[in-house]
Amino acid sequence: MKKILIVGGVAGGATAAARLRRLSEEDQIILFERDEYISFANCGLPYYIGDVITDRQKLLVQTVGGMSKRFNLDIRNFSEVTAIDPDHKTVTVKNHQTGAVYTESYDKLILSPGAKPIAPPIPGLAEAKNILTLRNIPDTDKIKAVVDSGQVSRAVVIGGGFIGVEMAENLQELGINVTLVEKMNQVLKPLDFEMAQLVHQEINANGVNIILEDGVDHFQNQGHEVVLESGQVLQADLVILAIGVVPENALAKQANLKVGPRGHIVTTANYEVFNGENDTVNPDIFAIGDAVEVVDFVTKTPTAIPLAWPANRQGRLVADYINGKKIGNVGIQGTAVAKVFNQTIAATGNNAALLDLKKIPYQVVVAHRSNHAGYYPNATNIALKLLYDPQTLKILGAQAVGQEGTEKRIDVIATAMKLGATVLDLQDFELSYAPPFSSAKDPVNILGYIAENILDGVYKTVQWHEIDQIVADGGFLLDVRSPMEVRAGGIKGAVNIELDSLRERISEIPIAKDAPIYVSCQVGQRAYLAIRILKGHGFTNIYNLAGGFSTYKTAHYQLAALNFGTTAK
Amino acid sequence: MKKILIVGGVAGGATAAARLRRLSEEDQIILFERDEYISFANCGLPYYIGDVITDRQKLLVQTVGGMSKRFNLDIRNFSEVTAIDPDHKTVTVKNHQTGAVYTESYDKLILSPGAKPIAPPIPGLAEAKNILTLRNIPDTDKIKAVVDSGQVSRAVVIGGGFIGVEMAENLQELGINVTLVEKMNQVLKPLDFEMAQLVHQEINANGVNIILEDGVDHFQNQGHEVVLESGQVLQADLVILAIGVVPENALAKQANLKVGPRGHIVTTANYEVFNGENDTVNPDIFAIGDAVEVVDFVTKTPTAIPLAWPANRQGRLVADYINGKKIGNVGIQGTAVAKVFNQTIAATGNNAALLDLKKIPYQVVVAHRSNHAGYYPNATNIALKLLYDPQTLKILGAQAVGQEGTEKRIDVIATAMKLGATVLDLQDFELSYAPPFSSAKDPVNILGYIAENILDGVYKTVQWHEIDQIVADGGFLLDVRSPMEVRAGGIKGAVNIELDSLRERISEIPIAKDAPIYVSCQVGQRAYLAIRILKGHGFTNIYNLAGGFSTYKTAHYQLAALNFGTTAK
Ligand SMILES: Cc1cc2nc3c(=O)[nH]c(=O)nc-3n(C[C@H](O)[C@H](O)[C@H](O)COP(=O)(O)OP(=O)(O)OC[C@H]3O[C@@H](n4cnc5c(N)ncnc54)[C@H](O)[C@@H]3O)c2cc1C
Ligand SMILES: Cc1cc2nc3c(=O)[nH]c(=O)nc-3n(C[C@H](O)[C@H](O)[C@H](O)COP(=O)(O)OP(=O)(O)OC[C@H]3O[C@@H](n4cnc5c(N)ncnc54)[C@H](O)[C@@H]3O)c2cc1C
Ligand SMILES: CC(C)(COP(=O)(O)OP(=O)(O)OC[C@H]1O[C@@H](n2cnc3c(N)ncnc32)[C@H](O)[C@@H]1OP(=O)(O)O)[C@@H](O)C(=O)NCCC(=O)NCCS
Ligand SMILES: CC(C)(COP(=O)(O)OP(=O)(O)OC[C@H]1O[C@@H](n2cnc3c(N)ncnc32)[C@H](O)[C@@H]1OP(=O)(O)O)[C@@H](O)C(=O)NCCC(=O)NCCS
Repeated sequence: MKKILIVGGVAGGATAAARLRRLSEEDQIILFERDEYISFANCGLPYYIGDVITDRQKLLVQTVGGMSKRFNLDIRNFSEVTAIDPDHKTVTVKNHQTGAVYTESYDKLILSPGAKPIAPPIPGLAEAKNILTLRNIPDTDKIKAVVDSGQVSRAVVIGGGFIGVEMAENLQELGINVTLVEKMNQVLKPLDFEMAQLVHQEINANGVNIILEDGVDHFQNQGHEVVLESGQVLQADLVILAIGVVPENALAKQANLKVGPRGHIVTTANYEVFNGENDTVNPDIFAIGDAVEVVDFVTKTPTAIPLAWPANRQGRLVADYINGKKIGNVGIQGTAVAKVFNQTIAATGNNAALLDLKKIPYQVVVAHRSNHAGYYPNATNIALKLLYDPQTLKILGAQAVGQEGTEKRIDVIATAMKLGATVLDLQDFELSYAPPFSSAKDPVNILGYIAENILDGVYKTVQWHEIDQIVADGGFLLDVRSPMEVRAGGIKGAVNIELDSLRERISEIPIAKDAPIYVSCQVGQRAYLAIRILKGHGFTNIYNLAGGFSTYKTAHYQLAALNFGTTAK
Repeated sequence: MKKILIVGGVAGGATAAARLRRLSEEDQIILFERDEYISFANCGLPYYIGDVITDRQKLLVQTVGGMSKRFNLDIRNFSEVTAIDPDHKTVTVKNHQTGAVYTESYDKLILSPGAKPIAPPIPGLAEAKNILTLRNIPDTDKIKAVVDSGQVSRAVVIGGGFIGVEMAENLQELGINVTLVEKMNQVLKPLDFEMAQLVHQEINANGVNIILEDGVDHFQNQGHEVVLESGQVLQADLVILAIGVVPENALAKQANLKVGPRGHIVTTANYEVFNGENDTVNPDIFAIGDAVEVVDFVTKTPTAIPLAWPANRQGRLVADYINGKKIGNVGIQGTAVAKVFNQTIAATGNNAALLDLKKIPYQVVVAHRSNHAGYYPNATNIALKLLYDPQTLKILGAQAVGQEGTEKRIDVIATAMKLGATVLDLQDFELSYAPPFSSAKDPVNILGYIAENILDGVYKTVQWHEIDQIVADGGFLLDVRSPMEVRAGGIKGAVNIELDSLRERISEIPIAKDAPIYVSCQVGQRAYLAIRILKGHGFTNIYNLAGGFSTYKTAHYQLAALNFGTTAK
């Protein structure tokens, strides 16, 4: 019989506890949770605030009573573990209800303390009562109470990560005027900029004001005014601070466990922590979830991925390991999805921005395809971007923005990545097809097709952010859309020859056959067909504008000015 | 320059033509299509009849004019290829508009003639005008004209395959009383019986009458009465005959090409046909699509899969091969999906029935899981069944019935299968999670978890069709649901001890620790938790009823009697 203590009773901790009990009926398992609630639906909190989930009870996936009974656990809520003594294998616990402080010994200790919202010492923050963060049920109750008071007509959400964007949507759906402020030039970091622009459009179109490349300088008037670095002042009845999370590492630091550069607990592949002093593995303390550093599946470099899937997965694996099972740990891809109004945003692996940062070479494939047969009602476009290693052809990452069926394509690609597939393998995925669900060539297959043509040297790609300069420098850009489409908008300096008359008019192209020729259309497909014709007529140095004018135009989207008459510069 | 002829201008043929042109600007490419239309949406036809697709024009993905122009093709519609002369490398063509007959030579010939509805010589069929089949636009126009005449209040659909079921739905949605007749004991063969029962329920619930295990004996009264083998007589203003398809092999037979046992054209992995006489490869004639025999990806045995994905895929591959590219051909899984009223039915690979037939051993994993977080509105159940090889652990097939997100799980599994994944790999698929889309442990992950427990020897499974006999023979069946659930229905002979009191009441179990004990609950999960407890208390020979009472009950579903007062025995 082992005595196992767990710190943190939600995604990682509760999952570990359940699995530990399943693997051993005898072990003594004590779960400590600082707050009242264990095993709640963190991810559902924004939707409860937005009245999408109307029953608060539903947020409690398990209760202390229910879970103790079912899994024969000793669950102690309101109980904060305040210190670990690795040498004596004990922890100190403070009961926040009774004030009692006691120690508890362990054979094995699992830390799943999670991550907490960043709340930097912004001037004016301390004085304000209306600036809230969202992590748990008490936070939710607070925000909900403010919102339900009927006093909130204007809200400012600071931070355009998943939680910020979800909060902006949910507050907006309640009829509140919402402004979303983000320091970077885009929301949702897992997306590359031009993909995020689709989200900016969607958020604007749903009446949420977005301010990018601006941060909070200070709060004034008890938090009712948010003063940005630009000097702009936003009126706010409610402010949600959602600028990211930091690992809950107080315990780890106190116990002198090894932490990474951003404070995440460092572990072995078996989730064992390191004694910080001498960097030795501590075989009796484990850490999982948002608090830990993980290995990026793609680049094999350390990273942190505060998402529920890894926490749940690690919870099960650590329990297995403690019970003597061999476990694998291949790293985390960071597959993620969010609903943003009518859009679905999904991504897996690394994006181009991240690969650039890491100086990892990649080739881009972009496609815009219908989610299902175009002739079946309500087909919608999915913008897909995939990155692969030009050497190994392994998939490095993918992003998608669309509606129904969007995250399906990312899940398929994420699966392919986990199994080490190359971009060419995508062609052969036999995905289910009937008109309401897909096309006989699924968008995922098309990504593989496009990649094959690039690899066959049929054409090279040029990205939306490169083309203007190229044209300015005298590059020849051929737009093969119809004259009507061109009239509705196009790239400056492009020469228009419609695809279907290209064969007859090919002599009009005034450049040498081996000079670079850049071809564009609406999404890249007709440009490709044109490229095949050009190739057949002797052109040898051809580029396709990835994503066509559609991607180009989106990338140049200008934020709508929705200031609700509530902001002043 | 090569001269390439293509027979058949729809899924396989049109795709091949487009890719052939892309790969070579010079080749002469002639596409023969017997009918008026090329490149139409076969798969959309039922939805046009059902007024879901309202614009007939939308069914024409490409037109003769549009496609000829874009791809510089010589497209000849109304032109039937009536004979091949492999020795002289010519075909005979009959123009159905002018009556002209001529020969055309080829360097390469691609056959993509498809498959046609089976129409056996049932007595009374020839005399009837209201018995129609559905394959192409003229068929559609005919059915649509009958339906639009307003004379159809009762329709009989014969055959419960994908097309039959889709037609039943679409006619029903038009307000017609529909009876679906199927000779087997279930519709939709890719599903195992108990999964198909979910579909029977759904079809019944939507007011369609189903008659199983009965076939048409003859038609009488000009087709207005369908007399079944049982003697039952169905009144019908319209009859749709959808009992399956046979390959269009007249040409192949005429040219003495090799065909398989069910008449499909046999090809090499490069889609080359065989000269029937001496079984030699004919390097200049290729066949693809519904007309050909393919290799079952899972079992590597010959089969036929008349679906659009393979036809499209093969169309591209054959064009590649003809242009000197190396191609791969790993066989076809038969991934399929259909919408049946509010349900989505999806499957890939082999089902248990097929594996039984082929005497291939398999282990079953069944799960019922929410499509997304239960606390987020409109979560619906997905019934999942997966089969894997107990030796290699490779996935052999999977089926799913549910609503939103159903085919996503099958697509993920189909991808895994193509990449040679084992059932344990499913655990590590990092699938996207947010409450509207999934759970932190995706249903696909759960399949992997269940499999691991089975492989770890924690329990064995017993199937719904085995348990009654086992109990009748004195087996001990423990139902761990709540007494309230048990009162609402359960399996005869089961002993009820609720999961949450099992630890206290374990001594009530009257059998030896090494005697077989069968455990059930609603879907299998609580039974599993009970099994872990039983194991912890020394029981060693434990079975879980796969899919629980839910699967058991569905499997025993009795068809509703919806005879619209129109049938008589
Ligand atoms: C609003 C919101 C929305 C989210 N949406 C999504 C989503 O859509 N998809 C997704 O994948 N992820 C989402 N997440 C992230 C996801 O919830 C986390 O990744 C996951 O919960 C991490 O699990 P964990 O066990 O590491 O930490 P948590 O689930 O945060 O659990 C840690 C627990 O430990 C307790 N604790 C900390 N220190 C101590 C101590 N010293 N003593 C006792 N108890 C302690 C804390 O009180 C906390 O309850 C969301 C998170 C939030 C806040
Ligand atoms: C109603 C219906 C619904 C369907 N739904 C789905 C679905 O949801 N999902 C799915 O995957 N599949 C579906 N299918 C099947 C799919 O359409 C076929 O698998 C696919 O079209 C096969 O492509 P093919 O090129 O082999 O044959 P086809 O697309 O049938 O094309 C063959 C063409 O060849 C022509 N032809 C034949 N012989 C000659 C000749 N001697 N000379 C000249 N021309 C000739 C025929 O007239 C025909 O137009 C459906 C089919 C039908 C009929
Ligand atoms: C509620 C909670 C404690 C459940 O943990 P859990 O029991 O491990 O997870 P599940 O309820 O999904 O059950 C999965 C287990 O049931 C088994 N199972 C599921 N369906 C089964 C079936 N039909 N037959 C047999 N076994 C089945 C699985 O094999 C798995 O057991 P294993 O890990 O021993 O292999 C935990 O998930 C939790 O706290 N969740 C809320 C917090 C959270 O995750 N927040 C972030 C997201 S909002
Ligand atoms: C219409 C039809 C002729 C089109 O064939 P197709 O041109 O091969 O297919 P698509 O239109 O999907 O285009 C795919 C091609 O465009 C390329 N492509 C698509 N998007 C692209 C983009 N954004 N950038 C570059 N290339 C792109 C792909 O690489 C592929 O070309 P490749 O095969 O040379 O690699 C054929 O699909 C057809 O007849 N369909 C109707 C019949 C049918 O399938 N029925 C059954 C289902 S209802």
